[in-house]
Amino acid sequence: MINIIIAGPRGNMGKEAVKMVEKQHEFNLCAVVDYKYDNIQMKDAEGMESLKIPVYSDLKTCIAKENPDVLIDLTNPETGKKHLRTALEKGVRPVIGTTGFTDEDIKSLSNLAEEKQLGAIIAPNFAIGAILLMKFSRAAAKYMSDVEIIEQHHDKKLDAPSGTAMKTAQLISEIREEKQQGHPEETEAWPHARGAEYEGMRIHSVRLPGRVAHQEVIFGGEGQVLTLRHDSMNRTSFMPGVKLAVEHVMESTGLIYGLDELID
Amino acid sequence: MINIIIAGPRGNMGKEAVKMVEKQHEFNLCAVVDYKYDNIQMKDAEGMESLKIPVYSDLKTCIAKENPDVLIDLTNPETGKKHLRTALEKGVRPVIGTTGFTDEDIKSLSNLAEEKQLGAIIAPNFAIGAILLMKFSRAAAKYMSDVEIIEQHHDKKLDAPSGTAMKTAQLISEIREEKQQGHPEETEAWPHARGAEYEGMRIHSVRLPGRVAHQEVIFGGEGQVLTLRHDSMNRTSFMPGVKLAVEHVMESTGLIYGLDELID
Amino acid sequence: MINIIIAGPRGNMGKEAVKMVEKQHEFNLCAVVDYKYDNIQMKDAEGMESLKIPVYSDLKTCIAKENPDVLIDLTNPETGKKHLRTALEKGVRPVIGTTGFTDEDIKSLSNLAEEKQLGAIIAPNFAIGAILLMKFSRAAAKYMSDVEIIEQHHDKKLDAPSGTAMKTAQLISEIREEKQQGHPEETEAWPHARGAEYEGMRIHSVRLPGRVAHQEVIFGGEGQVLTLRHDSMNRTSFMPGVKLAVEHVMESTGLIYGLDELID
Amino acid sequence: MINIIIAGPRGNMGKEAVKMVEKQHEFNLCAVVDYKYDNIQMKDAEGMESLKIPVYSDLKTCIAKENPDVLIDLTNPETGKKHLRTALEKGVRPVIGTTGFTDEDIKSLSNLAEEKQLGAIIAPNFAIGAILLMKFSRAAAKYMSDVEIIEQHHDKKLDAPSGTAMKTAQLISEIREEKQQGHPEETEAWPHARGAEYEGMRIHSVRLPGRVAHQEVIFGGEGQVLTLRHDSMNRTSFMPGVKLAVEHVMESTGLIYGLDELID
Repeated sequence: MINIIIAGPRGNMGKEAVKMVEKQHEFNLCAVVDYKYDNIQMKDAEGMESLKIPVYSDLKTCIAKENPDVLIDLTNPETGKKHLRTALEKGVRPVIGTTGFTDEDIKSLSNLAEEKQLGAIIAPNFAIGAILLMKFSRAAAKYMSDVEIIEQHHDKKLDAPSGTAMKTAQLISEIREEKQQGHPEETEAWPHARGAEYEGMRIHSVRLPGRVAHQEVIFGGEGQVLTLRHDSMNRTSFMPGVKLAVEHVMESTGLIYGLDELID
Repeated sequence: MINIIIAGPRGNMGKEAVKMVEKQHEFNLCAVVDYKYDNIQMKDAEGMESLKIPVYSDLKTCIAKENPDVLIDLTNPETGKKHLRTALEKGVRPVIGTTGFTDEDIKSLSNLAEEKQLGAIIAPNFAIGAILLMKFSRAAAKYMSDVEIIEQHHDKKLDAPSGTAMKTAQLISEIREEKQQGHPEETEAWPHARGAEYEGMRIHSVRLPGRVAHQEVIFGGEGQVLTLRHDSMNRTSFMPGVKLAVEHVMESTGLIYGLDELID
Repeated sequence: MINIIIAGPRGNMGKEAVKMVEKQHEFNLCAVVDYKYDNIQMKDAEGMESLKIPVYSDLKTCIAKENPDVLIDLTNPETGKKHLRTALEKGVRPVIGTTGFTDEDIKSLSNLAEEKQLGAIIAPNFAIGAILLMKFSRAAAKYMSDVEIIEQHHDKKLDAPSGTAMKTAQLISEIREEKQQGHPEETEAWPHARGAEYEGMRIHSVRLPGRVAHQEVIFGGEGQVLTLRHDSMNRTSFMPGVKLAVEHVMESTGLIYGLDELID
Repeated sequence: MINIIIAGPRGNMGKEAVKMVEKQHEFNLCAVVDYKYDNIQMKDAEGMESLKIPVYSDLKTCIAKENPDVLIDLTNPETGKKHLRTALEKGVRPVIGTTGFTDEDIKSLSNLAEEKQLGAIIAPNFAIGAILLMKFSRAAAKYMSDVEIIEQHHDKKLDAPSGTAMKTAQLISEIREEKQQGHPEETEAWPHARGAEYEGMRIHSVRLPGRVAHQEVIFGGEGQVLTLRHDSMNRTSFMPGVKLAVEHVMESTGLIYGLDELID
């Protein structure tokens, strides 16, 4: 049985994490940490699941009283950073789902984890499917060098391409030699039809109501096409990644950055 | 039994048409017309099927000798135009697969067909699947007004978007009120990711080895997406359209422009 | 302005219908009908939107007090049938989203609608995208007679194939001559790989977590493939269909069965 | 420069291999081996490319005269087996594209390759895209255990499911714990809609004109779906695999079975 505390239990991710931990036989939810509440139970706090589980406003107090094995932190960059350090110092293994760590942060926290002989995981993205997609895309690019990315999202999205599409293109470019794709003399009768360009690859962003979050990486070779696609419907898709991280952090020593490090 | 002559039997389309006519029980291939050969049989002409069927260099002579019901012309714009007129004048129903007809041409040839009480068909595109795709796209746009087009072709293609994609967008715009899609404040971190724009729709062109000719029209609505897709692998895909045109031209009077007129 | 009452406002569909009517400028939600509540406002009834709109337990009373133009009924087969009759008798145009009407019911209600000179619509399916998919499938089958259906749903679904897939196959079979597809001597190394069979067509049902409700109708022809696909994410997808029905029922006379009758 | 001879130059694969070797700057085609011809040039043999390259009927003679580095064998199981042994005995590195090797064959040939200190490759499948698909499927199954396979082929195909689909399912089952997918109480209104079953996975075979050879492996998880798809259009798709094998065989010692061994 792994004893777990969750920071950020009212957020979208936090809510799902509470449900996931409650469902797993080998996980035990001891407490949650939320700066807005103290000394009450989740069932009495607005925006939380109706559970008889204590809420603490302060992480240190929570750890002292509950003696957990793992902290799952789904708060915000600033709080996440502080909580990571506090957890390690108090002997708790942190799984942190926030972003904003500098190289320096990671170095210093990595040293601390080694010193304390504890596992620690920072995972800016818990979607295992998306991580597999990126990993496979990088691997395929070694053998099939012509590639285009099509990502599709709902039409409320402000930015194009999506962060995942840009990260995928960058990962591919680490493996692939730069190569201008398409016919060298191609022209656009309607400007920009060929989409965005990154080191010769092309990236296309579709925005339509009814779409959620989808990405296709298409590798073309003479007489064949390999397509890798990920469809993400909602935040429940992140939970297998959180679970994997919790299991892994119990058996590792030192800091791991990125869930892709756990996936072989 | 419909007696048929084919002009342009050495071209890509012509070759397929010869095979198709030979295979149909209710069709009879009487002769072919090819400016390079005369007074020989197909089996003795380079680049033709090994058939004991006469080749004529001149359409008029061919008609006079063979007395066909239908001419299938798959030559070039200039020859196609002449052949259409000659066929009608000699009482043969023409199915013409070339482009380049002006509005004036069509009017004058239409009058001639009426005068002769003969059917005649000009079909710049014989791919029934592509025609259905355009027809359905136009129909769907009435009920789902957010639409993007993704077309994918081999990387030897020079122009983007494809002609079919542009024609599809134009057909949709006849039905759909102009509408700027996507978030009004969307930005492109990598320029042109959102593709080409036509009356507020977005069009994306993918060029990859391994692809042949593919088009997807995606309609998004609250909570749902309707996708219409056509994949074209090779010129055999045009033959059901040629067959349909031959059957139809035997039972109609007057000139029809575009195979979509035959499809309900 | 069209004055509307909704029966069944606590159901999944009913809730979405309340939101949709509230959002439309040209629609006015006068009241809702719910057998469990009377003489209160929606905001005081559990499971309803927080609106200052009266709730009636009885349709007749509701009509007498509120004098609406249209009734949207999203209750259950038994209640829907009664409400349809009541609405027509009291001069209100009904839009009924329930199933279970016999041919006799439809005949008798149709007569009543004609007698009262009122429009009435029964729509067992409000998903316009799905209706377009079925309509286009039927149309395409005329020209491309080889067809297979793949439907994908979440793994909680009990029955296979989906109702829509079976209905689509039946619609196609009205147009298509019966035809055994695949190689006449094909064998299954692993039994049932070729899926279900309906008049020679093949139907395949995929059940996976992460899927919602998806259907693909694939038409194959020599050298080409036409694919029609519908993805349905949630019940909001039904609302454009409800809206269309309300608008149409105001301008029609007599009973219409099936939203496909409204779509050309 | 790698000096290459090709056995089986008139077969579908052999023809493509001749073209590929001719196109590569670092490859030199010295000769071809074909039991039907001897002492002539390819340009004078029916069914071969028009090249001034000698044809031998016997492999030993060919090796003695041409002193090649690599043999590419695309003949048939019986001949391929003999050629492999001959090549190794004469100091030539073999790349064999035929099937039918027993475990015993492989052991004995492996010993021979070690003894001669030569590389040798047997590759029953040269389609890199298909091999990547199988490799990625196996990797993904570790993290996403619900999976279905849809394969689509032309309607001339006799067997279902395809060999690749069966092999993919078997590879996945090495990683995945057996698991009955779908709802435990699911029923089929139309028998076999849920397709073939292999250790709880489902496999679906579509056969349609217009399709060539396509496979989709779909992994479903809570809120997400990962799809891996391979489309194969024609035999040119095998050539990058042949090229990779030739390059690799020059730098390795011992026998490698399966191209997946070369791909990391």
